[in-house]
Amino acid sequence: MTDAAIAVLGGTGPQGKGLGYRFAKAGRRVIIGSRDAAKASAAAGELDETLGGDGLVTGMANAEAAAQAGLVVVAVPWDGHNELVESLRGELSGKIVVSCVNPLGFDKAGPYGLDMGNSSAAEQLQSIVPAARVVAAFHHVSAANLIGPAEKLDHEDILVAGDDKEAAAQVRALAATVTGSPGVDAGPLRLARQLEPLTAVLISINKRYKTRSGVSISGLPQD
Amino acid sequence: MTDAAIAVLGGTGPQGKGLGYRFAKAGRRVIIGSRDAAKASAAAGELDETLGGDGLVTGMANAEAAAQAGLVVVAVPWDGHNELVESLRGELSGKIVVSCVNPLGFDKAGPYGLDMGNSSAAEQLQSIVPAARVVAAFHHVSAANLIGPAEKLDHEDILVAGDDKEAAAQVRALAATVTGSPGVDAGPLRLARQLEPLTAVLISINKRYKTRSGVSISGLPQD
Repeated sequence: MTDAAIAVLGGTGPQGKGLGYRFAKAGRRVIIGSRDAAKASAAAGELDETLGGDGLVTGMANAEAAAQAGLVVVAVPWDGHNELVESLRGELSGKIVVSCVNPLGFDKAGPYGLDMGNSSAAEQLQSIVPAARVVAAFHHVSAANLIGPAEKLDHEDILVAGDDKEAAAQVRALAATVTGSPGVDAGPLRLARQLEPLTAVLISINKRYKTRSGVSISGLPQD
Repeated sequence: MTDAAIAVLGGTGPQGKGLGYRFAKAGRRVIIGSRDAAKASAAAGELDETLGGDGLVTGMANAEAAAQAGLVVVAVPWDGHNELVESLRGELSGKIVVSCVNPLGFDKAGPYGLDMGNSSAAEQLQSIVPAARVVAAFHHVSAANLIGPAEKLDHEDILVAGDDKEAAAQVRALAATVTGSPGVDAGPLRLARQLEPLTAVLISINKRYKTRSGVSISGLPQD
C-alpha cells in the first residue's frame, strides 16, 4: 500500500495540486484527477517539471485516477462533491479515501462555515460510499505553502479524523510527507464537522494579517 | 477601563477559575461570579491565597459581579446559558462581554459540537443582550494549564472573534495576560460557530495523547 499511487481528485485546484506536489516530492506516485483529462495531464506535467521530471506525477480523468490508485484524496469543491463521489462509488469502495473538502460560504463579511447540520463533507462521502474507508485530513494547509519552497511545513499540524483506525493511521503517516511529522489523531470521523469549517477562520486570519496561516497543536508529546 | 474589575461569571468552574487566576496574576482586579455567592467567595478566597493574598480577587453572586465589573467574562456551562444572560440584560448592556462558552455534547464516542444551526453561544448572547459588546475568546485554553505553574501559556494562541472592533482589540490585549502575546484577530463574531466546537477536537486529542492540548496559529507575523 505504501507504494501504491495516490490519486488526487480535483487535483488541478490549488489545494489538490499542492498536496500532489508534496506527496510526489516525498517519492510517492501521484495521479492528478480532474473532470477534464487534458487539464489533469497539463497540471501533472507542470508538477512533474517542478519536481525535476522524474515522472512520478501523471494526470487523467477522476474516475480513471481513482480506479488506478491505492489511496484517493478528494480535494474537489464542496459544490458538486456529492454528485462526484456518487458517480465514483465503485472506484472508491474498499479504498482509503481522504476528504479535505471544506464546505464554506463567502459574503461581504468574509468566509464562514456552511450550516451542515449534524454532518460534514467527510460524513456525507462515507454515507454515499459506505464501503470507502473515509478519513478527514489536510483541510488547513495553505495551498501557497504547499506549493512553496519550504522543505517541510514543520510549523503546522495535520489533524486527522476517522473511524477506521488502520486507515487513519496510514493517513497520519502520509501527513509526514507534508509537515515532517505524523498527523494528529483528532478522533472519530464526526469531528470533521469541526475541522472543515475551521478553514474559514484561517482564511479570515490570512486576510487580516496578510499571511498564510496554519494550525499547530500545542502540548503534544513531541513539543 | 484597563483598571476596571473583570467579572468571571461561572467563575467557580475550572475554566472560569483558571481565567480569573491568570487575570489577577497579571494585576487585574477579578470578581468571581456564581449563582451562589458563598461558593463564589470560597473560590475567590482560594485564588487569593494562591496569589499570595494581595486581595485582587473577590467573589459574589453573578448579577452583582456583572454590575460591578467593567468587563464581563461569561464562562458558564451552555446548559442554562441563555436564561442566565437574559436575567443579566441590564448588567451586561454597554459592557464588553467575553463569551468562552463551548456548546458541546458527550457520548460514548467522546465529545462533539452541538448542532447550533447558523448560530453560536456568543451570537445568542448578542441577540439576547443587543447592547452588550460581545467578543468570543478563550475557548481553547485548558483549565489545567491555566491554573498550572507556567508563567505564561506561550505555546498557545487565543483566537478572538467580534464585530465591535474596539471591544475585540481590548480582548486581544487582555489575552496577553494568559499567553504573553496579544490574541489573534480571527474576524467577525459569527466565526464563534467554528471556535466554540473546536474545543471538542482538543478534548478528543487530550484523551488520545494524555495531554492538555491547545491551539497555536502558524504563519503569524511574530513567528
